Amino acid sequence: MAKAKHALPVTRAENFADWYQAVITGADMAEHSGVRGCMVIKPWGFRLWEALQRRLDQRIRETGHENCYFPLFIPLHLIEKEAEHVEGFAKEMAVVTHHRLEMKDGTLVPAAPLEEPLVVRPTSETMIGEAFARWVRSWRDLPVLINQWANVVRWEMRPRLFLRTTEFLWQEGHTAHATAEEAMEETRRMLAVYREVVEDFLRIPVIAGVKSEGERFPGAVETHTIEAMMQDGRALQSGTSHFLGQNFARAAGIRFQDRDGALKYAWTTSWGASTRLIGALIMTHADDDGLRLPPEIAPHHLVVLPIIREEGHRAAVMEAAERLVKAASGQAFDAQAVRAHLDARDLPTPDKRWEWVRKGVPLIVEIGPRDLEKGTAALTDRLDLAAGKSFPQVSDLVAGLSARLAAHSRRLFEEARAMREARTRRDIADVADMRAFFAEEGSGFVIAPWAEDEASLEAIADLGVSVRCLPYDQPADPGPCVLTGRPAKRVAVFAKAY
Amino acid sequence: MAKAKHALPVTRAENFADWYQAVITGADMAEHSGVRGCMVIKPWGFRLWEALQRRLDQRIRETGHENCYFPLFIPLHLIEKEAEHVEGFAKEMAVVTHHRLEMKDGTLVPAAPLEEPLVVRPTSETMIGEAFARWVRSWRDLPVLINQWANVVRWEMRPRLFLRTTEFLWQEGHTAHATAEEAMEETRRMLAVYREVVEDFLRIPVIAGVKSEGERFPGAVETHTIEAMMQDGRALQSGTSHFLGQNFARAAGIRFQDRDGALKYAWTTSWGASTRLIGALIMTHADDDGLRLPPEIAPHHLVVLPIIREEGHRAAVMEAAERLVKAASGQAFDAQAVRAHLDARDLPTPDKRWEWVRKGVPLIVEIGPRDLEKGTAALTDRLDLAAGKSFPQVSDLVAGLSARLAAHSRRLFEEARAMREARTRRDIADVADMRAFFAEEGSGFVIAPWAEDEASLEAIADLGVSVRCLPYDQPADPGPCVLTGRPAKRVAVFAKAY
Repeated sequence: MAKAKHALPVTRAENFADWYQAVITGADMAEHSGVRGCMVIKPWGFRLWEALQRRLDQRIRETGHENCYFPLFIPLHLIEKEAEHVEGFAKEMAVVTHHRLEMKDGTLVPAAPLEEPLVVRPTSETMIGEAFARWVRSWRDLPVLINQWANVVRWEMRPRLFLRTTEFLWQEGHTAHATAEEAMEETRRMLAVYREVVEDFLRIPVIAGVKSEGERFPGAVETHTIEAMMQDGRALQSGTSHFLGQNFARAAGIRFQDRDGALKYAWTTSWGASTRLIGALIMTHADDDGLRLPPEIAPHHLVVLPIIREEGHRAAVMEAAERLVKAASGQAFDAQAVRAHLDARDLPTPDKRWEWVRKGVPLIVEIGPRDLEKGTAALTDRLDLAAGKSFPQVSDLVAGLSARLAAHSRRLFEEARAMREARTRRDIADVADMRAFFAEEGSGFVIAPWAEDEASLEAIADLGVSVRCLPYDQPADPGPCVLTGRPAKRVAVFAKAY
Repeated sequence: MAKAKHALPVTRAENFADWYQAVITGADMAEHSGVRGCMVIKPWGFRLWEALQRRLDQRIRETGHENCYFPLFIPLHLIEKEAEHVEGFAKEMAVVTHHRLEMKDGTLVPAAPLEEPLVVRPTSETMIGEAFARWVRSWRDLPVLINQWANVVRWEMRPRLFLRTTEFLWQEGHTAHATAEEAMEETRRMLAVYREVVEDFLRIPVIAGVKSEGERFPGAVETHTIEAMMQDGRALQSGTSHFLGQNFARAAGIRFQDRDGALKYAWTTSWGASTRLIGALIMTHADDDGLRLPPEIAPHHLVVLPIIREEGHRAAVMEAAERLVKAASGQAFDAQAVRAHLDARDLPTPDKRWEWVRKGVPLIVEIGPRDLEKGTAALTDRLDLAAGKSFPQVSDLVAGLSARLAAHSRRLFEEARAMREARTRRDIADVADMRAFFAEEGSGFVIAPWAEDEASLEAIADLGVSVRCLPYDQPADPGPCVLTGRPAKRVAVFAKAY
């Protein structure tokens, strides 16, 4: 009967993948559509994405970038231009070959073939590179700092809601600079923005670093990344920023006349974060009762449920509930008014309470006729479901809201960090040790010296373990490579990854 | 030499289509991409779209709708379900037939054909109808009120920036209701929202009404529309709201158990507005010097240009310019702070001033060293370019900002309305009269009684004139049909259209 204690039909321990799906269904966030690999993002899921989008968009503007919009379609000849890029993306693209349908024998068939097929953008370096080549003439035109919010398509054979979908939503920033130094500074600046938004807004702790050669974005010179640990011990890449050197500038012909009169290729960067982050939010914070939301992103901080058992009480209870919503809205969190929501739907209160539990709202407050004289309310704290309801004075509850939400936010972050630390090993000495660790634990992070020899990874390839990043934070003397025993310059994070 | 007076290389009178393109280029709003029919929306154009989007999104939420996101791709079998819909859209769709590319003889070719081709959404009634059929079971689940912001694709043979592009951005609202009355009320409510946003925010006067049978959305029972007149006398459909009856509900199987226990088909609506409205904004308000923006949508209300001819003046002039920006920001317009922007770029002042003229900023203020003692500034009012600069006291300028911007807004609306009224004829009695009007004037609105016989339109088909709408506002006794002389129940708006 242990299962009856939880709001979801399956727990993390029973089946992590099924639990993940159950959280999404339980919170009514998204669902699979009739189109293979494409999802429908429902209102609760989309509100989370919109909140993340607002925060990230604000930081992208504050760092000097302007929003634009570029075409969905890319002609094949543009894709062909950057060889490594083709290699990396050609395998998973949707190809438009016709621009008309005709009815034949009662079914629609493609008609009017295109002279040149078009690819549905998997990313827009090639398309935007072509525009930059038009826009940039002189050093005075640089830097070009732009961003777009868009849908992109990468064919997925094993789709999972938010994590891996054929179509997903993202922002992609693209910049061009006069010098390598400036472009590298931009690459790091935007990774820092991702780190800040993911840690401070989504409350997901991350490790920032650079990708190893084998894990770079196709065509990039360096890929910088933030990596988070999910509750099953796997890594999830949560934002990447690419230093593209002059590769895409040469392919697209982005040249400028420099101050010294010489014609030079520009240095470009690109960086992106996607709806995948909603998957990371779930797998970091949700528990066996459903989603748990950091107050930074929660659409409601506080949901008020008026309990009306007799019509005679309705007016008084509703008035008290509305007063609470108003008083709560006068408090502040994260430099904004507390978001309090009155749920007056005509449904049983326990059904409503469990719905908000599954949706991850931080605080749920019930007010009934008996509370009115006492000035109390029944409070459910989403992080303390097991402790049951408490019955604070409404005035105390309101006065303490800001502090309570701040503590809620800190606690989610600290729980996630503690989980990660508990599943991170820094004392793995060799391949046998590493194999034993993943055999016993299934997953987790191994942080160990690595000599950065791609071929050496074959020793652990069968485990499904890869290098997630070479962290920015490095020890003075890493010691010998965990895979080869040769001297290593840096430590790497080894893990299984989403 | 008359041409030298204007900031654009071509005037409205010389060539309206070229002038339209020149406004867009002059304001750096958008450009054609390398993909036929697809545009790149540049920062200035995209800021206008984002501002419109924010306002419209706010109104869509306030009227009870929630944002979602549905797939870009629609399987052919779903498109086939609604017969009229197929008929209307099948001719102009992008069709995805493969999901991989392969390199063959040095070029990329489509590989891995799909079992069922996918259409890139031209609109989402079919896809969303399928979701509604999953979501709706009982009358308790109704109404469903959702909206999405998305890109859509309709193949365009004669593309024009913003007005007709193969890919465009829009919002599409989709709702399902238990009764025809409710769905009809929703259809009208959302048309009223469009009217309000287009008139009060974009300051474009419109005529609201219903489409004639031949102009309805494919599959709709009624299409409601707002129609604006552009400066060349042509009509531009600026937002439509469709009462779909039970057509799409039957095609998709959206059924619910009603209060009486009976299983019934839902009544649905859909409504959309697109980046086309940016085209309408240009063709309504721009003049021969470029864009003119209503302050409601202008990214900057006021641009301040510091004039620094000698380094010795720099500090004092910059300080005065910054003080003005700060003081202006303390004033209000449209319930928000006035948006003042300091343009301190190291470029010649006249170049900067003309750039902002072409971009349509309402007020441009220059401050130089000689202004400092006198407390004055040189003001360029975008609506009074011909009058030249005025030299108000800065304190007076700031104190009068709210009133000045409000007058600016009113004046743009009134100019557009006066232009429309001057080019509208209500006294056309028969086909000969109508032919004479369009032969002489080229374009304009003819508002005249019409017996709503689609076949009668053949008499004017060669003129390129069609019925834009049957206005909500109708005279008590319209009189005989302008085309047939038979009794008419309503007057119609006849015009050439974009």
